[in-house]
Amino acid sequence: MEEISTFEIHEPLDMHLHLRDGDMLSLVGPLTSQTFSGALIMPNLVPPITTKEALLAYKERINEACYKDKFEPLVTLFFKNDYTYEFLNDIKDQIIGIKLYPAGVTTNSETGVSSMDIEVLRPTLESMSKLGIPLCIHGETNGFVMDREKEFMPIYESLAVAFPKLKIIMEHITTKDAIELLDKYDNLYATVTMHHLLITLDDVAGGMLKPHLFCKPIAKRPEDRTALLSAALKAHPKLMFGSDSAPHPKHKKESCGCAAGVFTSPIALQVLTQLFEKHGCLDNLNKFISLNAQKIYNLNLAKKTIKLIKKDFVVPTAYEYKNESVIPMYAGEIISWSIMSIN
Amino acid sequence: MEEISTFEIHEPLDMHLHLRDGDMLSLVGPLTSQTFSGALIMPNLVPPITTKEALLAYKERINEACYKDKFEPLVTLFFKNDYTYEFLNDIKDQIIGIKLYPAGVTTNSETGVSSMDIEVLRPTLESMSKLGIPLCIHGETNGFVMDREKEFMPIYESLAVAFPKLKIIMEHITTKDAIELLDKYDNLYATVTMHHLLITLDDVAGGMLKPHLFCKPIAKRPEDRTALLSAALKAHPKLMFGSDSAPHPKHKKESCGCAAGVFTSPIALQVLTQLFEKHGCLDNLNKFISLNAQKIYNLNLAKKTIKLIKKDFVVPTAYEYKNESVIPMYAGEIISWSIMSIN
Repeated sequence: MEEISTFEIHEPLDMHLHLRDGDMLSLVGPLTSQTFSGALIMPNLVPPITTKEALLAYKERINEACYKDKFEPLVTLFFKNDYTYEFLNDIKDQIIGIKLYPAGVTTNSETGVSSMDIEVLRPTLESMSKLGIPLCIHGETNGFVMDREKEFMPIYESLAVAFPKLKIIMEHITTKDAIELLDKYDNLYATVTMHHLLITLDDVAGGMLKPHLFCKPIAKRPEDRTALLSAALKAHPKLMFGSDSAPHPKHKKESCGCAAGVFTSPIALQVLTQLFEKHGCLDNLNKFISLNAQKIYNLNLAKKTIKLIKKDFVVPTAYEYKNESVIPMYAGEIISWSIMSIN
Repeated sequence: MEEISTFEIHEPLDMHLHLRDGDMLSLVGPLTSQTFSGALIMPNLVPPITTKEALLAYKERINEACYKDKFEPLVTLFFKNDYTYEFLNDIKDQIIGIKLYPAGVTTNSETGVSSMDIEVLRPTLESMSKLGIPLCIHGETNGFVMDREKEFMPIYESLAVAFPKLKIIMEHITTKDAIELLDKYDNLYATVTMHHLLITLDDVAGGMLKPHLFCKPIAKRPEDRTALLSAALKAHPKLMFGSDSAPHPKHKKESCGCAAGVFTSPIALQVLTQLFEKHGCLDNLNKFISLNAQKIYNLNLAKKTIKLIKKDFVVPTAYEYKNESVIPMYAGEIISWSIMSIN
């Protein structure tokens, strides 16, 4: 058998990304925009993005920090119960979706919704449904850390039933339960990160504690990873790649109270190629990393081809800009695929 | 109702303690020996304690580092399959027990047993049984981190059945399963740490990641903590306090790969008094912290009385000696009981 030595990814999309702001945006923006065609950008800044002015200003800052050619920042609003139909109608062409955070479940989610009661959420969700604005959800309860996503499943089900025309995206799913739910409701979709295809809680806390692999939702059990990986490898049509790449300064990761987030943007294409090749599923990678999302979100992108070559890539030990320093996943380790060209 | 304002602990015992060596021993030795009457000292140095010479030399270094008056270091050997009856007979009066580590399950356990096959362990265990030497076990498999102790239960059961006269101590138990096993076999006993009575995985990784609460075995689920706490508060006669206080230098806790261990020695008496008082179980604390262990190990100790007073104690942010610095649990926080006198 001839060994595959190059592979092309077309119009890669990262459907769940944190770009932050300020110097951190300047550091991480180019690392995504160089290789990806688009990315769905999370609105959980401080304060969160809840107005048209803030949205457009943030989009402008993103465009300034990023490669402009062939990269589209797909920006989102931070969900609020009191958005009016008029407001949403006015802003709908500027956003790709609205991100809902239950209060307190992750970084900068303090101002998220304090109740997942459907009647409380109904006015905004009905407007979104009518206007065709997708709902992206961080689906975790405030329960025991290993149960939070599983406990959220009945809420996803209620929402899917109550708003059958609303596209609901279960963000960064981490459990077998969530994978099973995908096939149960037509209007439920999901993103999955790269790291949740690769690690379990064992990698975070089974040996030494690894703060750079600590994220929310926390990595789960081996049977969960198996279910996620299996769905990704077969390019389940309702599952999209969303890195949830979440940069935190080094000093906030290696300290008494380490912030949640794994930084994967600059290594995602190489590592995913390695992973899909290892399992003999390279034919499905373009669906997982682009085509599924294009269909789900009706995207129309400029052509962009990333050519990878099977050649060692040593992951930098850190990415730095001014006073910011971010440690990537696999820092200092070797990946067997490198990026050869971007056109 | 009159409020309790002082409380006396008599001959407190820490039946699972890491004192390390060198400057770290000099730092932590006094912190235990000042307030405790005795402590069962773990043998997992580098190299581990496996000879009489190493044992006696370590005991001497411990005695040099510790308060000598009214403190007894109860030293242990590191389990090996090839200890002869003659060797064990010669050393038995010098040790309180032998500690068995499955290889690779925790700090400095690399040279532990590579198989828990009873036939492999039988020669040493038969000699121990005949000589009345207790077996202390770190009971974890190499499985998924949340399942390791539960998966070890059948091994405890096999050992208890195969060696009915051998006292087997399940060290630092963390699960409901282990508590249930205590009542099933006459010759099974257990230690439990203070932190496993207080925290779950939520405290380690439910919010920010807390390296100073990261330990092996890892803190488990809420229902596990409830079972452990309930057994401790009622002073289950087969359950002993063993802090598993495990000092690591600050730089090894707050880094890319954080070592496992919670440092509790200098705060244990105060925090346990606060905990037992809160649950209205102060009457049982002396059993949990001393009398149970005295009976199980047939100890005869000099009288030592620690008088505590209900008065705020601010936990130091660090304990330091020369270049060593150790961060205690609850660093900088306030405990409602302080030590008033030691006699």
